[in-house]
Amino acid sequence: MRAVILAAGQGYRIRLLSKGKPKCLIRLLGLTILERIVYACRAAGVREFLIVLGFEGEKIRRFLGDGSRQGVKITYLPCPHWEKGNGVSLHAAKRHIRRGEKFLVLMSDHLVQPELLQRFVEEAADCPHSLMAYDDRMSELPNANEATKVRIGSRGDILKVGKGLRRYQGADCGVFAFTPLIFKCLEEAFAISRFTLSDGLDFLIRRRAIRGFHIGNFYWQDIDSRFDLSIARYKILSRLNTGKEGWVSRVINRRFSNQITKRLINYNITPNMVSISSFLVAIVSAILFIVKMPFSAGLIAQFSSILDGVDGELARAKFHVSPFGGYMDSILDRYADLFLIFGMSAYVYSRQPTGTVLLISFIALMGAPMSMLCKEKFYSAFGVPFIPDQMDGWTRHLPANRDGRLFIIMVSGILDQVLYGLLALGIITNFQTLYRLFSVKRMKLKTTD
Amino acid sequence: MRAVILAAGQGYRIRLLSKGKPKCLIRLLGLTILERIVYACRAAGVREFLIVLGFEGEKIRRFLGDGSRQGVKITYLPCPHWEKGNGVSLHAAKRHIRRGEKFLVLMSDHLVQPELLQRFVEEAADCPHSLMAYDDRMSELPNANEATKVRIGSRGDILKVGKGLRRYQGADCGVFAFTPLIFKCLEEAFAISRFTLSDGLDFLIRRRAIRGFHIGNFYWQDIDSRFDLSIARYKILSRLNTGKEGWVSRVINRRFSNQITKRLINYNITPNMVSISSFLVAIVSAILFIVKMPFSAGLIAQFSSILDGVDGELARAKFHVSPFGGYMDSILDRYADLFLIFGMSAYVYSRQPTGTVLLISFIALMGAPMSMLCKEKFYSAFGVPFIPDQMDGWTRHLPANRDGRLFIIMVSGILDQVLYGLLALGIITNFQTLYRLFSVKRMKLKTTD
Repeated sequence: MRAVILAAGQGYRIRLLSKGKPKCLIRLLGLTILERIVYACRAAGVREFLIVLGFEGEKIRRFLGDGSRQGVKITYLPCPHWEKGNGVSLHAAKRHIRRGEKFLVLMSDHLVQPELLQRFVEEAADCPHSLMAYDDRMSELPNANEATKVRIGSRGDILKVGKGLRRYQGADCGVFAFTPLIFKCLEEAFAISRFTLSDGLDFLIRRRAIRGFHIGNFYWQDIDSRFDLSIARYKILSRLNTGKEGWVSRVINRRFSNQITKRLINYNITPNMVSISSFLVAIVSAILFIVKMPFSAGLIAQFSSILDGVDGELARAKFHVSPFGGYMDSILDRYADLFLIFGMSAYVYSRQPTGTVLLISFIALMGAPMSMLCKEKFYSAFGVPFIPDQMDGWTRHLPANRDGRLFIIMVSGILDQVLYGLLALGIITNFQTLYRLFSVKRMKLKTTD
Repeated sequence: MRAVILAAGQGYRIRLLSKGKPKCLIRLLGLTILERIVYACRAAGVREFLIVLGFEGEKIRRFLGDGSRQGVKITYLPCPHWEKGNGVSLHAAKRHIRRGEKFLVLMSDHLVQPELLQRFVEEAADCPHSLMAYDDRMSELPNANEATKVRIGSRGDILKVGKGLRRYQGADCGVFAFTPLIFKCLEEAFAISRFTLSDGLDFLIRRRAIRGFHIGNFYWQDIDSRFDLSIARYKILSRLNTGKEGWVSRVINRRFSNQITKRLINYNITPNMVSISSFLVAIVSAILFIVKMPFSAGLIAQFSSILDGVDGELARAKFHVSPFGGYMDSILDRYADLFLIFGMSAYVYSRQPTGTVLLISFIALMGAPMSMLCKEKFYSAFGVPFIPDQMDGWTRHLPANRDGRLFIIMVSGILDQVLYGLLALGIITNFQTLYRLFSVKRMKLKTTD
């Protein structure tokens, strides 16, 4: 499905902030609003864009170019009479839309979560009519008064749209999928001197040719003010974590990693650079253990753990997620773990050169890669991802994930109880592996019953 | 698709061997011929069977039961007049076949490779007519003279079937998919006192309602004699290896593992028992290293490597392949590797207690799980399996796979050069991991170009 982005408007209220640039070129966490919209569409499978230009349109064209940098194709449609209303802007796309083509329409100042677009595109492809997204969380909207309200019929069709509606079920999110019928409706509105998209919608509604799409808990936001921008910044940052992290990561690391991500995002630093930095910081920690500075080693290990969260956050914030990035990060993390345990072992052994120390070190080394191995092998053997919350029983509370293991290393370094740290690592990781072996066996018996 | 298996015939020539049992109950590598046919069908997605009984049919029914042990549903159709010909046997299925149902027909004495059936079932589902499999490798057939020959038209339809054909393109494999029209054709043949399936086929051919399916390189075999049985035994054993093994496994281990599999297959030993045995044997080898018996330790390590091939062979030979088996085997193998390296390290360190030895041991330990980790993570990150032959460049010749690593351990133990063994393991495994990281990065750049 192709997308039309309406980027002609001026955005009065925010003009001061945008310094003469169109609103959609304001930067938000390292990317302009318009780039965020394009990337969100790309994540939903959209590869071709028609961007309608009006106010300072050349700046937009110069900034985005033909889209090759974003991995998409962009065509620009200058619209001389855009000031009449956004219906006129949309109408500029008419001659580029093919007969019977269904197309997305988005506003250049409305941020939309990629997952929302993905679901919307799927639904639009199945629906013979036009589709518009609405949000029923009215109390949570920052500017509920100014929102365009939507009244929905019992069968999901749109009955009425307008700012002044008394009875309504939700607010318009500025996300549409239209058939070319919309152009005829816009022309009917133009004929009675009404020029907004809402006016065109009225004629589509009379034909009963548009349905509502309830967005549920997905995020979208109309950016109208400096205040909106800071809310958006907060919302985007709080969505950067996958939810699969361990509790150390959720409770401790995330506070720091979000702050680091927020600062790094404005620089030309790739997630892979951060992964490599996290690895190097772990090596520094291992060396500090070896040269008998366990306190600093422990702190540095925890810093490496925090950085290990930043790469993923940065990748997601910049829509830069790559399979290779995930692959390299995994391999480097395993090496970092092993070097850290080696550093700890060398430290303990230099003070207590006994066979017991070597044995404990060996057991800790052995367990280090097992958590990941179990999960990855599970996926390739059974074809479904391993979900620790469902399959690890009470052992899911053990700090056997990477964030938990590095936390143990930090604590044992700070308290100068490194041998106990090794012992804890060895017991926890190997015990969990054993537990998983048995829980997977049980699970398998259940499915064949 | 359901399958009809014609198991009524007597099998004159092989009667001595089968000791009064129907031919299809002869054991071949731990399973009867009939079980092999049922399991091959199950692997191709067939879950319901109609088995036509004649000669000593009760023995078959008693042996297989309702199929719940095999995870399928079996209905038995006794056919009193089976001796007239196999057309009569097939006709016994008529009242169980639904209107318009397409069904498989197999001979109870024809072994068929599961992959052949899978492809055949797919093709049959797409084809509006009946379908019969033919093999054009006439020179490789053990009893080419006695085979039923098939003449194929230019558009893939069957033109003629019979033992005495002069012009033919291949031999009938005894694998069919029929529409219920076959019953009408059989009845037309019965009316002129002809009672074989071939006679029915003649009438199907006159209606141009049957097409040929070229089986290519797949394996099938008609079991008619003691000699056929020994060929089948050889063919099945030679197909038990996946082809993904390293060269040590292909050149050395397989000879031994095939022999062990051939012997174990007649006992009630599960593949998982063999996996656990292989693990325990590796632990014994590690202990032998620790108690300073490197020669025996090396040999025992190699024996563990051989056993590591037997579990998979046994699983495939008995149609017992399970995701949990693969999962457990992977985890146990990793532990076995680490214990072996620990044993080697302890042995070397007891004679040369230096930091260098510890460092080398650490490097070897670190590399041990990496080969598997790289492959598994690649699969989950990119969604396609890692194919060493394509992606490892010249490093695919390094003995970095498990069979190669255990071979290094054997050689270093036998020659009592265990430190060099550790060094070789550490260098090879870590170097390959590094190589893979760069080769995956290059590959990724290629795909985004």
